Amino acid sequence: MSDLAAIVLAAGKGTRMKSDLHKVLHPIAGRAMLDHLLASLDELAPKQTVVVVGDKADQIARAVGGRAETVPQEPQLGTGHAVQHAQDTLTGFSGDVLVLYGDVPFVRAETMRSMLERLHGADEPACVVLGFEPADPGHYGRVIANNAGSISKMIEFKDASEEERACSLCNSGLLAARSEDLFALLARVSNDNAQSEYYLPDIVNIAIGDGRACAVVVCDDPGEVTGINSRGELAAAEAAWQAARREAALADGATLVAPETVFFSHDTRLGRDVMVEPNVVFGPGVTVADGAWIKGFSHIEGASIGAGAQVGPFARLRPGAVLEENAFVGNFVEMKKATLGPGAKASHLTYLGDAIVGENANIGAGTITCNYDGYFKYKTEIGPRAFIGSNSSLIAPVKIGADAIVAAGSEVSRDVGDGDLRMVRGEQIVKPGWADRFHDAMKKKAAKKD
Amino acid sequence: MSDLAAIVLAAGKGTRMKSDLHKVLHPIAGRAMLDHLLASLDELAPKQTVVVVGDKADQIARAVGGRAETVPQEPQLGTGHAVQHAQDTLTGFSGDVLVLYGDVPFVRAETMRSMLERLHGADEPACVVLGFEPADPGHYGRVIANNAGSISKMIEFKDASEEERACSLCNSGLLAARSEDLFALLARVSNDNAQSEYYLPDIVNIAIGDGRACAVVVCDDPGEVTGINSRGELAAAEAAWQAARREAALADGATLVAPETVFFSHDTRLGRDVMVEPNVVFGPGVTVADGAWIKGFSHIEGASIGAGAQVGPFARLRPGAVLEENAFVGNFVEMKKATLGPGAKASHLTYLGDAIVGENANIGAGTITCNYDGYFKYKTEIGPRAFIGSNSSLIAPVKIGADAIVAAGSEVSRDVGDGDLRMVRGEQIVKPGWADRFHDAMKKKAAKKD
Amino acid sequence: MSDLAAIVLAAGKGTRMKSDLHKVLHPIAGRAMLDHLLASLDELAPKQTVVVVGDKADQIARAVGGRAETVPQEPQLGTGHAVQHAQDTLTGFSGDVLVLYGDVPFVRAETMRSMLERLHGADEPACVVLGFEPADPGHYGRVIANNAGSISKMIEFKDASEEERACSLCNSGLLAARSEDLFALLARVSNDNAQSEYYLPDIVNIAIGDGRACAVVVCDDPGEVTGINSRGELAAAEAAWQAARREAALADGATLVAPETVFFSHDTRLGRDVMVEPNVVFGPGVTVADGAWIKGFSHIEGASIGAGAQVGPFARLRPGAVLEENAFVGNFVEMKKATLGPGAKASHLTYLGDAIVGENANIGAGTITCNYDGYFKYKTEIGPRAFIGSNSSLIAPVKIGADAIVAAGSEVSRDVGDGDLRMVRGEQIVKPGWADRFHDAMKKKAAKKD
Repeated sequence: MSDLAAIVLAAGKGTRMKSDLHKVLHPIAGRAMLDHLLASLDELAPKQTVVVVGDKADQIARAVGGRAETVPQEPQLGTGHAVQHAQDTLTGFSGDVLVLYGDVPFVRAETMRSMLERLHGADEPACVVLGFEPADPGHYGRVIANNAGSISKMIEFKDASEEERACSLCNSGLLAARSEDLFALLARVSNDNAQSEYYLPDIVNIAIGDGRACAVVVCDDPGEVTGINSRGELAAAEAAWQAARREAALADGATLVAPETVFFSHDTRLGRDVMVEPNVVFGPGVTVADGAWIKGFSHIEGASIGAGAQVGPFARLRPGAVLEENAFVGNFVEMKKATLGPGAKASHLTYLGDAIVGENANIGAGTITCNYDGYFKYKTEIGPRAFIGSNSSLIAPVKIGADAIVAAGSEVSRDVGDGDLRMVRGEQIVKPGWADRFHDAMKKKAAKKD
Repeated sequence: MSDLAAIVLAAGKGTRMKSDLHKVLHPIAGRAMLDHLLASLDELAPKQTVVVVGDKADQIARAVGGRAETVPQEPQLGTGHAVQHAQDTLTGFSGDVLVLYGDVPFVRAETMRSMLERLHGADEPACVVLGFEPADPGHYGRVIANNAGSISKMIEFKDASEEERACSLCNSGLLAARSEDLFALLARVSNDNAQSEYYLPDIVNIAIGDGRACAVVVCDDPGEVTGINSRGELAAAEAAWQAARREAALADGATLVAPETVFFSHDTRLGRDVMVEPNVVFGPGVTVADGAWIKGFSHIEGASIGAGAQVGPFARLRPGAVLEENAFVGNFVEMKKATLGPGAKASHLTYLGDAIVGENANIGAGTITCNYDGYFKYKTEIGPRAFIGSNSSLIAPVKIGADAIVAAGSEVSRDVGDGDLRMVRGEQIVKPGWADRFHDAMKKKAAKKD
Repeated sequence: MSDLAAIVLAAGKGTRMKSDLHKVLHPIAGRAMLDHLLASLDELAPKQTVVVVGDKADQIARAVGGRAETVPQEPQLGTGHAVQHAQDTLTGFSGDVLVLYGDVPFVRAETMRSMLERLHGADEPACVVLGFEPADPGHYGRVIANNAGSISKMIEFKDASEEERACSLCNSGLLAARSEDLFALLARVSNDNAQSEYYLPDIVNIAIGDGRACAVVVCDDPGEVTGINSRGELAAAEAAWQAARREAALADGATLVAPETVFFSHDTRLGRDVMVEPNVVFGPGVTVADGAWIKGFSHIEGASIGAGAQVGPFARLRPGAVLEENAFVGNFVEMKKATLGPGAKASHLTYLGDAIVGENANIGAGTITCNYDGYFKYKTEIGPRAFIGSNSSLIAPVKIGADAIVAAGSEVSRDVGDGDLRMVRGEQIVKPGWADRFHDAMKKKAAKKD
């Protein structure tokens, strides 16, 4: 296979998003649009990726990091003009070039691959266009091609005849061409049109005029090439993505009691016989092993949930939460960088941060690991089968030994040895009849206020 | 413009609601139906508003307070009869009268205004009817009119000819007329019909018989004049309202990851680049400034959320909660009449009631402001940059100074000075091997029980 | 009426579920499919019920307990073959037999009854088939019958003529026959077909060949006889069930602000004027009395909620939670085997387990009943009008008297008398300027780390 370079167009202003964040950095399924696209592209191992940027160029540069180069396009005079701006960066490159769009994030690697394969077809096309057949072709530019996918003409909707408009094959904008063809053809594109812009699809008609073959590959799923231009379209794309992901989860053997209330991230992994109750949100980085039970109203990100473990309802697992086999996290419990060993339980109203909890330990209601002093974070270690009484504060760094017991309501700032009991007890004060006297006084005061 | 009076019919029994609450007091988007209507009406600044009431009249009287007068209609003999009951209350009034319905809450001021404008058209109509074209005209009464909106006949469905039934313009029931016309015409309406009721639309035919013009104004959105008669219709109206509000939020530049899971109130205000995760409920009185991030499973009412602030997941903000710029409220935190200063944090398992927290203060997990003694509420003040250790109880009234530290697990009932440390510590008790002996004893006991 | 026996086929492998749990044990609306079916069947008081099992037979046996006998079918050679396996178990039985399917769980008792009534019609049919008319008859077997429901032929789709395929009456598979007819006819069914299986519907054609009448009863709601074969179909059945249940709740006089976000169990009971906010999950065993208010994000199972009580948001009621009239459970509160007396309140961040709380008692934020010592559970009793200060730990077994007060932050392990105050107070330590010195030291340390 030839070497591959990709040019990703991301210079549009994205005005309809009404956002200070660059349009292509808005997330879908917990990942920026641009990252979805770069991840798919990555499967094709391109030698070079160039992102053409305009507004908010620094945001894009930060986001792509070492994964791509960015080149500015200023002013912005059309898609052809944008692609030309990548030419200098690709000076040393010779091979296939894919032109992609940052706001068309769901093109699959398989689709890109079929465009590249077609580019090396027997008729050696000068370029390959990705076409699609939307339910309503509307004002999309049309691709006039024969059944073999050989293009006779690319035409803008406004310039199309009735017959051409009747053609339902539309231009997605995505295109593949050899680098030498692409830039040679682009140099011949003119801006002699109403907008005075340089349009990328014009290279197809120029190549055809030269007697070169040009081909269209049809994308089966119009959703793959839908562009996202507004928050409404962003929400619609998220919804479509989630719907597909939920179906896949069901097909793979998870129960989603109410699929429409479960939200996945791009990388969520669910085992077999996982039960997910209504209203669960999976942020990025979550793995759930076989037979785990995720109860309703759980918010989970960056967590690993072991086989047979139970979570929720009202559990909040943050990055670094690890539940080993059959561990149990109940309601109003938060975990962050914390591990619950096999069979360990934190059933209620607990915060576990920077903590390791041993096998079958029991963390009582209201337990809090005090892991932060306002400046640094410290670690709590709790041994196997330890029992932490309710409303205890474990002031890290601190270790609780195996089988140890911490009595309810204790602040523990020193280590507790294996099998030891630790309790902190204040003076026990009983004032007989005090409450009765207090009630009387308060009732009088309240009566006076009325 | 002429003076305006409004007559709101609300005497129906609302039997299908199966409720002890008057039908028009059931809320949609956090506000009673009747209040939606009165708020729209308010934009036209009526001189007088009369609500005609039957069942549960006292509920209505309490609900409208000084905004309207109520008059009883007993027995209830039709819409014409109901309007007549408002005549005495309007004795001193001369001008335009709008007839509205308490269970048709979403008529916009703009629609009312166009009815009144039409009433003062060149043909000086005796009355103006609000018509609409539902998807299924079904059994609605029909308005037979020419293209200019001049009515030739009002006809009940059951009395209509085939040709008349084919007309899709239906009578919403809303009507505008000059006060003198309205009551003069009503006096001539008979109850010579199957139900022995006096029907308001009959005045149109009487006026036409007198040779007067009568006009119809067509309401573009049938949803505006849909009546609500059951809990199912209430839920459907809520759903329609929410769908429209969500679209508006997206268009205005907020991200709703899953719009269908976000519930707004009638007065929710969202800034630009606000991010709302799935499953957020906004009760009445919420303002969210630019760039704030509302995480999933948050329940927010009567709160002001500053720019860049973060809320949730699992946050509960009650009336009087104020988050200043970049403040942070995390999971399982409740705020009520409490202010978090700029950059201040209450990250976990906390109750802040009747409290003021200074800039960049840090409220540890499990902190509780003890603001109530069973009789009165007291205030807690926490200075800037103060650090409240986990599981502390702040027994109000109490002040914690700037930069002060409260150690974990302390009950603080006396003020803490700026830069001071306060801790409450019980006796530290360690019983080596006690836990091991306890486990042994309990295991024996458990074995015996089996 | 004749005696009744039921044969429930449940020997299918359920491969498409990809589950270690038998298909018919997967729950819908909080109850296993098979249990839905057995509950409907129970209304007809069958003398005997036989479940024919294959894979995971032990799971079924455990699940049905004393309600049915199970017989193994091994190998599995078709539905006719399966029914034959029940014959030995029914040796002593003479009467009507209903053939049902474990994965067709929503057949109503009324439908079964109409099949049995038809079986005793004047034409004394040899068997009665339950037919249905799906939106898309697709590849279902067809029932060719006249308007009186007399069958002339049962035909598999693949063997049907164009004319027969045009018939929209399909075979649900459910069948009723007298025991002697059923087994006599089954003995004559052959497996001379592509799959070499014995098909139950063949008995109809055999009986017709004998000159016997056979009848079809048409099931009005195709949803009643839809089979469930995958997690996707399970989710769809759940969704259909929930949609119907929500409509019924609305019709009965409950407000569901957003019906699509409320999840019921098979046995949820709601009173009149109950208000249910968005996002509420009712597990099995919940009763809500008139006028109760269930706020958003509540997870409720096995609980009884009294008239006028308030729950949530973010409340978690577990089995044995009882709220008496006007009791109040607020946010981040968990109750398990606990009763809140009339007007009693637990407003925030509380765990009440194995507890009884008296009338108008007030449970402060952060209160925890320490009901478990790692081995046994103990009870907490709180008297009427008692006031439990915030962040208290009630170490059960313990009794707090009427009108008693427990001060904030107390661990209470001994009983508190009526009208007494109990407080546990540690040493109060103030270190002036300590916090300032700490901040200085930490800032230096942090600076060094950078």
